[in-house]
Amino acid sequence: MAPTIDINADMGEGFGAYPAGPDRELLDHVTSASVACGFHAGDPRVMDATVRAAVEAGVAVGAHVSYPDLVGFGRRHLQVSGEELVTDVLYQIGALEAFCRRHGTAVRFVKAHGALYNDLASDETLAAAFADALSAYGGGMPALVLAGSPAVEVIRDRGVDVVREAFADRAYTPDGHLAVRGLPGAVITDGSVVTDRACRIAGGRPVEADDGTPLLVEADSICVHGDTPGAVALAADLRRAFAHRGIGVHAFT
Amino acid sequence: MAPTIDINADMGEGFGAYPAGPDRELLDHVTSASVACGFHAGDPRVMDATVRAAVEAGVAVGAHVSYPDLVGFGRRHLQVSGEELVTDVLYQIGALEAFCRRHGTAVRFVKAHGALYNDLASDETLAAAFADALSAYGGGMPALVLAGSPAVEVIRDRGVDVVREAFADRAYTPDGHLAVRGLPGAVITDGSVVTDRACRIAGGRPVEADDGTPLLVEADSICVHGDTPGAVALAADLRRAFAHRGIGVHAFT
Amino acid sequence: MAPTIDINADMGEGFGAYPAGPDRELLDHVTSASVACGFHAGDPRVMDATVRAAVEAGVAVGAHVSYPDLVGFGRRHLQVSGEELVTDVLYQIGALEAFCRRHGTAVRFVKAHGALYNDLASDETLAAAFADALSAYGGGMPALVLAGSPAVEVIRDRGVDVVREAFADRAYTPDGHLAVRGLPGAVITDGSVVTDRACRIAGGRPVEADDGTPLLVEADSICVHGDTPGAVALAADLRRAFAHRGIGVHAFT
Amino acid sequence: MAPTIDINADMGEGFGAYPAGPDRELLDHVTSASVACGFHAGDPRVMDATVRAAVEAGVAVGAHVSYPDLVGFGRRHLQVSGEELVTDVLYQIGALEAFCRRHGTAVRFVKAHGALYNDLASDETLAAAFADALSAYGGGMPALVLAGSPAVEVIRDRGVDVVREAFADRAYTPDGHLAVRGLPGAVITDGSVVTDRACRIAGGRPVEADDGTPLLVEADSICVHGDTPGAVALAADLRRAFAHRGIGVHAFT
Repeated sequence: MAPTIDINADMGEGFGAYPAGPDRELLDHVTSASVACGFHAGDPRVMDATVRAAVEAGVAVGAHVSYPDLVGFGRRHLQVSGEELVTDVLYQIGALEAFCRRHGTAVRFVKAHGALYNDLASDETLAAAFADALSAYGGGMPALVLAGSPAVEVIRDRGVDVVREAFADRAYTPDGHLAVRGLPGAVITDGSVVTDRACRIAGGRPVEADDGTPLLVEADSICVHGDTPGAVALAADLRRAFAHRGIGVHAFT
Repeated sequence: MAPTIDINADMGEGFGAYPAGPDRELLDHVTSASVACGFHAGDPRVMDATVRAAVEAGVAVGAHVSYPDLVGFGRRHLQVSGEELVTDVLYQIGALEAFCRRHGTAVRFVKAHGALYNDLASDETLAAAFADALSAYGGGMPALVLAGSPAVEVIRDRGVDVVREAFADRAYTPDGHLAVRGLPGAVITDGSVVTDRACRIAGGRPVEADDGTPLLVEADSICVHGDTPGAVALAADLRRAFAHRGIGVHAFT
Repeated sequence: MAPTIDINADMGEGFGAYPAGPDRELLDHVTSASVACGFHAGDPRVMDATVRAAVEAGVAVGAHVSYPDLVGFGRRHLQVSGEELVTDVLYQIGALEAFCRRHGTAVRFVKAHGALYNDLASDETLAAAFADALSAYGGGMPALVLAGSPAVEVIRDRGVDVVREAFADRAYTPDGHLAVRGLPGAVITDGSVVTDRACRIAGGRPVEADDGTPLLVEADSICVHGDTPGAVALAADLRRAFAHRGIGVHAFT
Repeated sequence: MAPTIDINADMGEGFGAYPAGPDRELLDHVTSASVACGFHAGDPRVMDATVRAAVEAGVAVGAHVSYPDLVGFGRRHLQVSGEELVTDVLYQIGALEAFCRRHGTAVRFVKAHGALYNDLASDETLAAAFADALSAYGGGMPALVLAGSPAVEVIRDRGVDVVREAFADRAYTPDGHLAVRGLPGAVITDGSVVTDRACRIAGGRPVEADDGTPLLVEADSICVHGDTPGAVALAADLRRAFAHRGIGVHAFT
């Protein structure tokens, strides 16, 4: 059976008079859209337009939930309790769902943004609270989390489905963690290397870790960073490379 | 057939460290709770606790939506376009719905708060946009609007159900408008007068307008202001008076 | 004596991860910078960087104050009381002053932004409150207001200096008001017409009103909209045109 | 020479429709007021009223600065860079200064609130950034920080004056740290014990640490928590006890 993969990108990251990234162009190439819900970016108009565009493009909509930190774009750790996280996540999912209802779809997955994404990958208490939010919301929605992180098991153990996300443009350590951003080589900018790594991940073949050893990254979705220069071209390249290698590209939901 | 009426009160108007009003006591007496959704008051923890308490008390939950004006408590007019109102209302309904899902209920109605409530009653374009938000959300939810205002027809004409709200503690002009707050006699503080007026409205009998002429206020719900001193005692009095006169008290949904 | 004029531009209109306009390039050409203070745009980092850059360029810093409406970019009317306006304006001036102190300067003027700018020009009560805020702050700072509007006299009558602002890229009615944006011809996009009108205004000569009659616009400062495409080139053109005609360009403070 | 001490209390912690604590009563007893600046509590109206009342009572005004976290009341750690802290602190001081100017006074000191207060006491990098903010603002204002914490020396080493704050209603460990809130006995509720400890601290005599050993807490100011029940009575008791023992009570500035 041919391998398949999902491609997701962050979207709807505008706010008020500030424009979002190249969302409409990205929608031609990705299969899942992680849409900001107003806590790190996005406002009701941006969310509405983003969901509308995703529906028109046939792309699955997910809630990209964050710590409440608009001025910090959700990139700063905030010390929240489990119950604060549960309620903040519920609020954001629900708000996005309203726009999905307007445009004839539903929230299909939930992904954490920025500092919360990283904190979930390393803090099992937070990951459990994140799972509890999805359980409380109901409907069987999966969480999109860092492939290889302890959060995968923590969330599954609480009865919530997990979709594992890999980054083709980021270096990994031999034990499967992302190399720390800021270290030399942590971000891979050579497009052909990125597409090669994406094809390896999608095809179930190992990539090279940052010490040169082979590493198997088991993942269901590849992330394209919408705010990276050249994101649209990269997404298009990924689609071509996947097609060339017989890798199916479908939303995971 | 015996007359019936709904009693609604604003709830969940705390924020962060700031407490809400006497919501738990009010829940013993009202049948519908209009819950703040974060734009004029309320935050995810307050919303969650308010919905939980309403469900425990068997009280119907509605979204109390507002202009985005936390520091002004939603009491100041803000010049929004129709589409801004539609999307702001959708965001708030959806956010509240998430907590309703957690606690096994659903948003049953939508009521505007503060300046938006007043603006809807007098601005047909806004009232139409409000109706469009409810249509877009779907599910057949009614709007709770000022009895006798043009918004009743505007919203019904767009296919959205309307529940008409009356204020037993406010004077009315002969043409059915609320007397301007701030004028002498505009707010009625004598509890026995308030309960008498409430019974008249619920029983389909006229009240006295501020010029002494009889006025028929056709309404489906009586509002108790949660932030009025003595609100709990007033709500309890209303229940007793309704029971005494054989007026049934039920949520309208 | 040779005529002189000030050129001012809005600056520091970024927020968090969202960049501001071409502030650094504009600073080469303008003499006054109206800096956003966090209510419609700007955050402490953006404000700090903007003030620093203005000081380096030798450009006078003013507070560009707004209604509190980040998501609406201050472009929506909000119904505030006089005392709400006084305190909101004080807060914003003070916040900006802190960055001026850090960089060895001071707030030199105050200009209203967006909807508040327009409201001041037509609402004398608001204009008086605006003047009261400047009086309360002290230090003799002038208000930068629409040339020809009633606010000029209202503010002066309260003992606050006024700098009159003209728009070379906007059509005027014969009675000196700005033609309503959105009407044909209300915004002038031909650069040579704009510079000609700017030179007429600066030189004390009449421009053509939108009915073809001559109109004298007495102004002390010409505004360049930082968010207009081509703003930097326009500002450079203005400087050249003024130099060519012997019009001095200096900050008014 | 007779010992003297300052008594400070947090004030202006209302927001919009939410009232502050018993500020006016406290102002009869304290000598310094730490006024919230809008990041954890306070808004322009609350700030203005609080400064006005402090001036009328002859109480020194300080800026009570916080992480930007209104919904969390500044009680949650937020991971900020040094430059983010510097600019956030500058913004808040400046905003408060505007109201001080209106009422004929000036910001006399700066105190961190909540999580930031605790973080400063344990994180020398943050404490240094806090000092840098005060240096940048200028005017020689002191920082009010936890007596005995490393921040005292860090801030002094950067040329900024320090006022050391002690808590008469909190237990101390033998090494001079506050006992962790939540542990039994960490908060002292017996008023006579609190006043006795306050007199010991003010008089330069040791208090009993939580293991029974004597501990000398060198402090210049005693904090009264405005949101503690009985805060006003406690402050009055402190004043009487200090008077009885010949301890002068003066603002430190």
